[in-house]
This record gives sequence, C-alpha cells and structure tokens, in this order.
Amino acid sequence: MASTEDQVVATTTNNDHLVQSDDPEHPANLIPELCRKFYNWGWVTGTGGGTSIRHGDHIFIAPSGVQKELMKSENIFVLQWPTKKYPAEERNYIRRPLKLNPSACTPLFLTAFENGAGCCIHTHSQWAVLVTLLVEREKGPDACFEISTIEQIKGIPRGKGKGMLGYYDTLSIPIIENTAFEEDLTSGLEAAMKKYPDTYAVLVRRHGIYVWGDNVAKAKTQCESLDYLFQLAVEMHKLGLPWVK
Amino acid sequence: MASTEDQVVATTTNNDHLVQSDDPEHPANLIPELCRKFYNWGWVTGTGGGTSIRHGDHIFIAPSGVQKELMKSENIFVLQWPTKKYPAEERNYIRRPLKLNPSACTPLFLTAFENGAGCCIHTHSQWAVLVTLLVEREKGPDACFEISTIEQIKGIPRGKGKGMLGYYDTLSIPIIENTAFEEDLTSGLEAAMKKYPDTYAVLVRRHGIYVWGDNVAKAKTQCESLDYLFQLAVEMHKLGLPWVK
Amino acid sequence: MASTEDQVVATTTNNDHLVQSDDPEHPANLIPELCRKFYNWGWVTGTGGGTSIRHGDHIFIAPSGVQKELMKSENIFVLQWPTKKYPAEERNYIRRPLKLNPSACTPLFLTAFENGAGCCIHTHSQWAVLVTLLVEREKGPDACFEISTIEQIKGIPRGKGKGMLGYYDTLSIPIIENTAFEEDLTSGLEAAMKKYPDTYAVLVRRHGIYVWGDNVAKAKTQCESLDYLFQLAVEMHKLGLPWVK
Amino acid sequence: MASTEDQVVATTTNNDHLVQSDDPEHPANLIPELCRKFYNWGWVTGTGGGTSIRHGDHIFIAPSGVQKELMKSENIFVLQWPTKKYPAEERNYIRRPLKLNPSACTPLFLTAFENGAGCCIHTHSQWAVLVTLLVEREKGPDACFEISTIEQIKGIPRGKGKGMLGYYDTLSIPIIENTAFEEDLTSGLEAAMKKYPDTYAVLVRRHGIYVWGDNVAKAKTQCESLDYLFQLAVEMHKLGLPWVK
Repeated sequence: MASTEDQVVATTTNNDHLVQSDDPEHPANLIPELCRKFYNWGWVTGTGGGTSIRHGDHIFIAPSGVQKELMKSENIFVLQWPTKKYPAEERNYIRRPLKLNPSACTPLFLTAFENGAGCCIHTHSQWAVLVTLLVEREKGPDACFEISTIEQIKGIPRGKGKGMLGYYDTLSIPIIENTAFEEDLTSGLEAAMKKYPDTYAVLVRRHGIYVWGDNVAKAKTQCESLDYLFQLAVEMHKLGLPWVK
Repeated sequence: MASTEDQVVATTTNNDHLVQSDDPEHPANLIPELCRKFYNWGWVTGTGGGTSIRHGDHIFIAPSGVQKELMKSENIFVLQWPTKKYPAEERNYIRRPLKLNPSACTPLFLTAFENGAGCCIHTHSQWAVLVTLLVEREKGPDACFEISTIEQIKGIPRGKGKGMLGYYDTLSIPIIENTAFEEDLTSGLEAAMKKYPDTYAVLVRRHGIYVWGDNVAKAKTQCESLDYLFQLAVEMHKLGLPWVK
Repeated sequence: MASTEDQVVATTTNNDHLVQSDDPEHPANLIPELCRKFYNWGWVTGTGGGTSIRHGDHIFIAPSGVQKELMKSENIFVLQWPTKKYPAEERNYIRRPLKLNPSACTPLFLTAFENGAGCCIHTHSQWAVLVTLLVEREKGPDACFEISTIEQIKGIPRGKGKGMLGYYDTLSIPIIENTAFEEDLTSGLEAAMKKYPDTYAVLVRRHGIYVWGDNVAKAKTQCESLDYLFQLAVEMHKLGLPWVK
Repeated sequence: MASTEDQVVATTTNNDHLVQSDDPEHPANLIPELCRKFYNWGWVTGTGGGTSIRHGDHIFIAPSGVQKELMKSENIFVLQWPTKKYPAEERNYIRRPLKLNPSACTPLFLTAFENGAGCCIHTHSQWAVLVTLLVEREKGPDACFEISTIEQIKGIPRGKGKGMLGYYDTLSIPIIENTAFEEDLTSGLEAAMKKYPDTYAVLVRRHGIYVWGDNVAKAKTQCESLDYLFQLAVEMHKLGLPWVK
C-alpha cells in the first residue's frame, strides 16, 4: 500500500492543471463555491458533508476533514472515470493532494455517478436529520419521508427522463439506517436506489442526506428544494399540520 | 409555433441593449440584485419564485428554472407593454434569451401590471405557506389571513391612493387555492383582486405569495413587511397568542 | 409652513459637507453601515426602525421610509443640537435631503439625547414584539420584561455611571403601549424613563424597542444583548423554562 | 500596580510587530476573521465570547468588550508562554493595546493551553445556554449534556490522541455552574477537566461554552459540531425526541 501512496503523491505533482481553470463553471472552481454556500446554510458544519462533480471522464471530489468554507481548488481530488469503488486504494486517483484524505463519501458519490448523475451533494442538514427521526417515530423504521400538495415538490424530478413531480403528486424519499462508517452506507444506498429507481435522493437516519442530479445546477436546486420541504415539514409537525393531505 | 420560436430567437439577438445598462437602478440590473436578496431570505429556493418590473412600456421578467442568486441581466426576458396574457406564444416578447424558458408566473405578473403595479414579486416563503395552512385549519378554506395591532402593518397600503394601513387597522390578505400549473392561478388571482380591490398581495395555499407595488421599492418593502408578519404570526400561534386583538 | 420648507431646501444644498467624510467612524458613514447590519438581523425590515447619532452639537438621523440596507450618507438628516421636539416644523434642521421625509422617530431619539445618550436605535425585532405579548398575557399590562441569571445580562448597564448589571441581577425593561402615530410614543417614553431612570431601553408593545447608549458602540452592543435575551426568552418560554430563577 | 501598567504601555509600543503579518494564517489575522464568523453565527453577540490562539510560546487573545466583528489585529493582546494565571497583573503581557482591557476569559484560555490546546473558543451560543437549562431540569444539576447516535458526534474527539467519537458512542459534555465573575469559572473549568480528562469542551450553565482543540481548525470545527448538536438537541426536545437512543 505504501507504494500506491508514493505513486499517488508523484501523480499529484503532475496533475495540478486538472484543478486550474479561469472558468468559474469548471468543477474545481464550482466545488469550493458550492461548499461556501452550503456552509452558510448549515449543511456542512464542522467539516461534515461533501460534494462531487463528474466532468467528462473525471470525477472531482472535495477532500475529507477540511473546513468546507475555506476549501480551495488545489484541495480537490480527481478520479479517472470509470473507477473501482472498492478497495479504496485501487481507485484510480489521477490527482490526490498531499496531506489530505479522500472523502469517505467517495463510494456513495460513485454510486450516484453509476446511476447517471453529474453531481452529488451530501449534507448534514438538521432538517433532514429531524425528519428521519419523526418518520421513524410516527410511521416506523421502514417508512419513507412523504409529503404532498406543496408547490416546492415541483422542484424534484419524477424520475430519470420523466419530468418533474406535479403539485398533486406525493414526494417519497427513502430513508436508510446509518452505519458506523460512512463507506458502509454504500450498500444501503445501492439497495434504496434499486428499490426506488426514480429517486434522486436518499435520507440517512440520524445523519443527513445524499442528493444527486443530472448536472450541478439540478443537484443543487433539488437539494435546496428538499431541504425547504424538510424544514417546512418539521414546522408543520410542530403546528400539528399533516404532511400528506 | 415553430416559426414564432424562430422569430423570437431572431429578435433576441437584436435586442440585447434592452438589458444592458450601467445604471444600477435599471430593471435589468435590479432584478438580479433583488433575486440575490430573495435567495438569501429563502424566498426563491431551488429556482422557485420570480420577479418582474414594468419600466415604461417594457416588462422585464426573470426567467423560469434558473438559480435565482446566479441570474444575470442577459437572462432577462422583455415584453412590449401592453401584451396578451394568453396564449403564451402570442405574447409580445421583444427579448427572449436563447435556451431559457419564460416564467410560468408571466400571466400573474401581467395581471398585477394591468392593475397598475410597477413591480411584482412571487415568493415561496415558508412563513407564507404555513399561514395558509393555519388559516385553512382554524378559519376554513374561504378565510383571509388577518392580523391587527402590530406596528409592521403600517408597511402595507390601505389601497391604491389611500395611504398606508394604521396600527389599529386589520390587515387582510386573501388566499387562493393552488393549481397544478402556475399559469392556471391567473383566474384565481384576478378574482381575488376583484373581490379585494385594495389588496397588494394574494397568498396561494401550500405555495407562497404574490406581492406587488407601485414601484420596485414599494413591492419589495411590502413583501418584506408581509413576510415579517407571517413569521410573527406563526411564532404567535406556537405561543398561543391570537392574531387579531 | 411652505416658507419653512423652502428654507430647509435652501439649507440642504448648502450643507452637504455635514455628511461627507472619509472617516468610517463619522456618523454619516456609521448610520448606513449600522442599518445594513440591522437589516440583516431583521430589525429594520420593510423600512421599519431607525437610528440616530449625536456628534457634538449635531444630530444625524436616518430618514423615514427608505430601504435601510440601501441608505446612503447623502440621505441623512442633520439637526442642530439643542432643538425643539415639537412642533416638528420648528426643529432646527441644518440638513434636510430633498424628496425624503424626516423620521417619525425623531422626537423619541431627541428624548434619548436629552437623557445623555450618544446614539439611539429603534428596531422592530420580532423577538421584542413577542416578549411584549408574552409579558402582557403572563403578568399583565403594567409589567416589565424581566430576566435573571443569564450571562448576557452583563451586557446591559445598571444605570448611568453605575457600571454593568451582574449575573445575579434581574434585568427589567419597561414596556409602553403602542400608539397610532410613532411621534405620540414620546410622552410614554418620557414617562417610562422618569419611572425607570436607570433603563437604557424601552419596549413598545406590538411594535419593537428603543435602545440607547452613551455612544454608538454601547447603543449597538446593548441592543444586540437585549435582542439575544428576548430571543432566548421566547425559546425558554416554548420549552417551559422560567425567565426569572 | 500603576508602575506595572506603565511598563505594559511601554512594552506595547515596542511590540506591534507581533500582530503584523501578511500571512492570513497568522493568529493576529485569524482571530479577527474567526470573530467575524462567530458574530454572524450569534456566538459573540454584544461583545460576548472570545478567542485565543497559542502560537509557539506566544498566546494571542481577543480583547475584552469590543465589537467582535470589527476587531482588528492591532487590538490583540499577546502573552509570553508560559505565564501566571493569577494574579492578573503578574501575567507576562508582551503586547497590551492601549485603551483596551484584557479578556476576562484569559485564565480559562490559559487552562486550556496548559491542557495542550492550540486554540480555545468561548461562545454565548443560545443553543448552549438552552441545553444547560434543559439538562438541569430533566436530569439535575450534576448531569452532563449527553447525546448519542447522531452522525455529527464524529466531529468530536474521543480524547487526546484517541481519535474521534464513533456514531454509536455517547457524547458527554460536562456542565459547570456560572459565577458572578468570568475569572472565577477557572476552578470549575479545571475541576471539570480533571473529572472528564477526555473532554474538549465545558458548558457553563446560563452562560455558554468553552471549546478547545489541538489547533485553530480543530477548535473551530469542534465548536461548530457541538453547536450543531445543541441546536439539534433543542429542536429534538421540542418534538419530544430523546437525545440518547
């Protein structure tokens, strides 16, 4: 494994150009910008959460354990796509910044990319955590989060190539149980995506949410719409208002 | 319809000057600036909501489906005033940006302009959504939102040319039912404006609010005052405090 | 009265230098900067609220009815100190911007300056409004807001020249009833200041708060500490925690 | 004591270079930047709270009683490490800005540094205050704040050199009683650190929290993670959800 590490370090020095661009739409510039926004929303508090973008056959990933609002382009990992999910040391890193660790979210992001996503966002939003707890208590451990007849539902796709949900539709977001290690969520995420092939998001009990989209704008706006709905749902619950009409 | 589209595209290229100005008070500069503010207040989350300004015989409208905090002047649609509300393809667009869709709020904005407004704002504020749900449960589907004897009420006009509400007045905001398609709210909005000719805002159940004003500053500050009152009302309800003294 | 107006207009043109300074600590620069902050805290939503600073024998006052976050130095009124409170048209304005109205808070600010203040802030904070309603319901219309044994109480003075409150002290803020016109609050404010000579703030039921201090920094930080305590008190009430130990 | 003061003043003039650096990572630049962030989170409202960084054998400390979001590098005190905690006038200040007072948090920061910390943060977060009140009422005056099986717990160390807490661990934060004077919290803090040698934070009832870390990034992100957990805990309590599974 030591030799793999050495190789990675060597590669790193060669591939700084992968994260250097004047284009604000380049993934290496977008990821820090998105993370600053997510920090201000309270989604990536205390180095939590993460973001990844697929750009052609390159996967750009925010590193583990950094202050997300301070992240720089040079901190970003790049994987050659496709790549192995496991074991981690066989993943095809073509840029791996010195002194930083790859995100433990990596296999989950890769799962979203296998599913056709162009961007995947992971937040620790408190509203997401609270709805996973409320659903568990009110409807049991196997229930999804469901909400209907709220305009913002239209911000969420009905499924790949199926357009957006309508006002009278019920939005369902599956919830998986948390695990001791983030990587171990991968099989739960895969199972949820198989069971709910139309979903663009999976809640993780007592943890947060993974949201993806066909591109950066879609992943981000879908993540915002879901967070809006979770916050609204918590407030509705406090006021005794049911989530499904 | 294809030919209409082609014509629009042609027109677009010709009329970029309509949204190019060094004046920060120009509608094409104000709309992006307002949308950035509204994004930070949580009013236009996930591409929701919208804004439109009438400037002489030009109507400037934020496009559909864009991240509101990233909107640029060049993304703005311009209509020649007056124009048809329906059918959409006969509206008199004099600038229609390529690759963007006109806002589904357009006929609602036009309704406000027919009524003399200089600016119309549509938000998905959660406080607005929550008061529509609380009013429905507490007072029934036909009731307005009502609040009295709160200083901020003075920020809302008593009606066109009638000055502002006083502290001892009761503010009433009509609530209309949501529809599957945003455009289909137009007749409900028109009916509410006919029934409540003094109102400068209409709530939409489970959706948000439309607020207008004689000019941009009035529309924006009235929208802020209403949102303040909705948030206060929700907190008052949680604390068991009645809205009308 | 028309001639007074003409005179004011004439004066205005002559005295622009009163609000032009490169010093960020100059009142004409501080007031817009403070108002931007207050806007972001939700204290001056929709043109509500206001701020005034006494600098030597000049009183600088934010105008009425402007968007507080957009205010500029050139929008600021200047009064020669001392000046009459009533009638308004006999106040000694030495700068009165064209097209703007003087703040209806003016006589209240002048009351604070008569009392030795160097700065006075008026907010419509929702937390302030909510505590006035909770105090009325729980303790009656004549009761003060009271809270004890919270560290942040130390941010409020015990009285002029008496140092700050201690942790074991009880903070008392008088509450006066609102009136139809802001100016008419003046006698209530004067009465409360006579009855509670040590107070640096007076709550106004269903309206907000007036907070003053020996200088700008003290007025602002005292206003922040009070708002912190009001927000905490509302949350404590929701959780069934008493305000006074 | 007067002569000590004179000496300090003299020293001050000589050592401005200690707080002058172009490096944004220099403590004299980091402290103002952190304080601006903490102000926006509501952690240092009204001059409350504070921050200190140990850099080699220099301790940098934010001054007492300043508006934290306006603090400048030149306002920062510097102590030579090691130094006495008591009496205050024998502390080894090598830079003491004129007209400013040293932070009353100083002996508490020094306690954290004695314990190996590289940075210590003190906030008046309302969420921290509320959990100290809820713990007291629900579990008594000697109980710690405890929460389990929430992902964000992983942002808190298990103890010096013991790695981070796991998802299935229970986080315990000791709570000490507040005192009339901030300095007098020191013995309580020392006792709590002796009793809970693995803790990186101590809550102060009705006051706030002290959080430290091996370096600035760790102290800040641990403080964020704790605040996230306190806010979540308060919301869980409102919703009737238990903190420990």
